Amino acid sequence: MADWITENQSAHLKLSAEIDKVLYSGQSEFQKIEVVHSLEYGTMLSLDGVFQTSEREEFIYHEMMSHVPLFLHPNPKHVLIIGGGDGGVARECVRHDCVETVMMIEIDGKVVELAKEYLPTIADAMIRKDPKLTVTIGDGIGFMAQAENKYDVIIVDCSDPIGPGEGLFTDEFYANTYKALKEDGLFVQQTESPMMHQPLVEKVFGYVSNHFPIARLYTAFIPIYPTGMHCFTMGSKKYDPLTWEANREQTFTTKYYNAGIQKAAFALPNFVKDYLIKK
Amino acid sequence: MADWITENQSAHLKLSAEIDKVLYSGQSEFQKIEVVHSLEYGTMLSLDGVFQTSEREEFIYHEMMSHVPLFLHPNPKHVLIIGGGDGGVARECVRHDCVETVMMIEIDGKVVELAKEYLPTIADAMIRKDPKLTVTIGDGIGFMAQAENKYDVIIVDCSDPIGPGEGLFTDEFYANTYKALKEDGLFVQQTESPMMHQPLVEKVFGYVSNHFPIARLYTAFIPIYPTGMHCFTMGSKKYDPLTWEANREQTFTTKYYNAGIQKAAFALPNFVKDYLIKK
Repeated sequence: MADWITENQSAHLKLSAEIDKVLYSGQSEFQKIEVVHSLEYGTMLSLDGVFQTSEREEFIYHEMMSHVPLFLHPNPKHVLIIGGGDGGVARECVRHDCVETVMMIEIDGKVVELAKEYLPTIADAMIRKDPKLTVTIGDGIGFMAQAENKYDVIIVDCSDPIGPGEGLFTDEFYANTYKALKEDGLFVQQTESPMMHQPLVEKVFGYVSNHFPIARLYTAFIPIYPTGMHCFTMGSKKYDPLTWEANREQTFTTKYYNAGIQKAAFALPNFVKDYLIKK
Repeated sequence: MADWITENQSAHLKLSAEIDKVLYSGQSEFQKIEVVHSLEYGTMLSLDGVFQTSEREEFIYHEMMSHVPLFLHPNPKHVLIIGGGDGGVARECVRHDCVETVMMIEIDGKVVELAKEYLPTIADAMIRKDPKLTVTIGDGIGFMAQAENKYDVIIVDCSDPIGPGEGLFTDEFYANTYKALKEDGLFVQQTESPMMHQPLVEKVFGYVSNHFPIARLYTAFIPIYPTGMHCFTMGSKKYDPLTWEANREQTFTTKYYNAGIQKAAFALPNFVKDYLIKK
C-alpha cells in the first residue's frame, strides 16, 4: 500500500505525492515540519502542510528569486535574505562575483538544521560555510526594521501569510524594506499564485506601490505550488525590469534562468494586469 | 462526505478536485468521458481520467492555442482544427476578422454533444452555429492527409498521445501537416509538460524540425495540467515567432493573451533549451 503526502492547495483542491520514506516529522517552535522522500520530486520539505521545495524542481524557485533581482541591479554587493531557511536562495546569491556579503535571517533554526541534513544540494552554501554568507537565526522583520540604507538587494523568501510569515505582508514591512535599502536598492518577495491568491497579490502590490516608485510583478512555473503559476512582487527605487538590458556577464550556469527569461517573466497575462491596474 | 475527482498526473502524483455534481459519466466509442462540477474550477471535462478543460481556466489554453499562431500569421483566412471537441479553440479562431473559414474535425461526437450541453461558454461558437465554422465528426488524421496547400493555420488540439490521439504524434503526421499547409502556413500542437514529458517534447520537436524550416516551442500556465507548465510545439514555413512584431490590431478582448505574452511565451528555461538543442 503506497503512502502519499497531500497538500490542501485550497479548500477544494489537493496535490498528492507518493512517498517511500518519511525522513523527519515534528513540531518546531514555529510550525509543523515534514521532510519526506517522494518518487516524483525527490526529497521534499513541507511546513504546516504546505509544500515548500523539492530536490527536483527547487532550481526554478531559487534561481528566479535570486537572479532576477540580482541581475536587475548593476552591481549588488550586500544582500539580505529574510527567511530562506533551506539555503537555496543563499546558494544562488553567493554565485554572483560582485556580491560581497549575504546576510540570511531565518526564524526557525530547525528548518536550517533539517535542510543541512536532508537537502544538502539546496543547503550547499550553508554546509560549505561560504565566506560571503552569514546565517542568523532570529526575527527578520525586527532585524530589518533597524537597518537603514544598508542593502542593495533584499529577498523575502517567506512561507505563506499565515503563521510565522504573517508580519511579512503588512504595509509597515514594506516601509521598513524601503528604509533598509540603499538609494538604488530593490527587493523581491514571493507572493503566491496570481490565479488562486488574487486578494493577496493585489494587497501586496498596493503596499509596494505606496512605498516604491517602481512596483512590478513577475511569474515563474513552480510545479509543486498551487496552480503551478507563481508570482513574485518587486519594489525598486531606481532600476526598472521593464527596460532592463543585460549589464554584466552571467559567469555561472543556471537551469531555468537566462536573459530571455529575465525579460519574459515580467510579461503578465491580461487578467493579472487588469486587477493590478485597478489599484 | 465530500466527493473528489482525481487525475493520476503521473504514477506518483495526483491532483484532486472537490466536486458537488457528476453531470455525465459514460463510455463513448473512443474513451471514458466525465463531466463534473468542481468547486475550484467550475464544470470540468475529463477524458480517460485526464483533466481536459474547466470553465474557470479554459481561457488560458484556448487563447494560447489560437491567438499565438493566428497573430503570427499576417493574414490567416483558412484554419483547420484537429480535435478541439469542446469548441474552445474554434470560439477563439472565429474572432479574428481576417479568418474566413474554420474547419474543425473531432473524432468523438459525444465530446461535442456534451460540451454543447454542459460547457456552453466554451462551446459557444458551435452552439451559435457561427457562419465561419464547420464542425465535422471524423478522423482528422485521414482528413488532413488528403489536403494539399489548403490551410493558413492548423491547430492540433489533441488529447494525450494515448488512445485516439496516438496517431497525432508520428513523423508521418507532421509530413502531412506540412503538405496541407499553404506555402506560408504554420501549425501548432499541444505537447504536454516540458518538465514531466521531456521524451514526448523532444520527439515531437525532432519530427517537426525534420519537416519545417522553423520549429519553436512556447509555454503557458495551465493550472489543471501536470506541473502547471504546459508547452505547445509550432512548425512554420515562413513566419518566425522569435522575430514577430504585431502586424495587425487585436479587435477583441482576451483574458490571458496579449502582444507581450506572444513574445514572452517563446522564452524558454535553460533546461528546456538544453534538451531541444541536443536534437
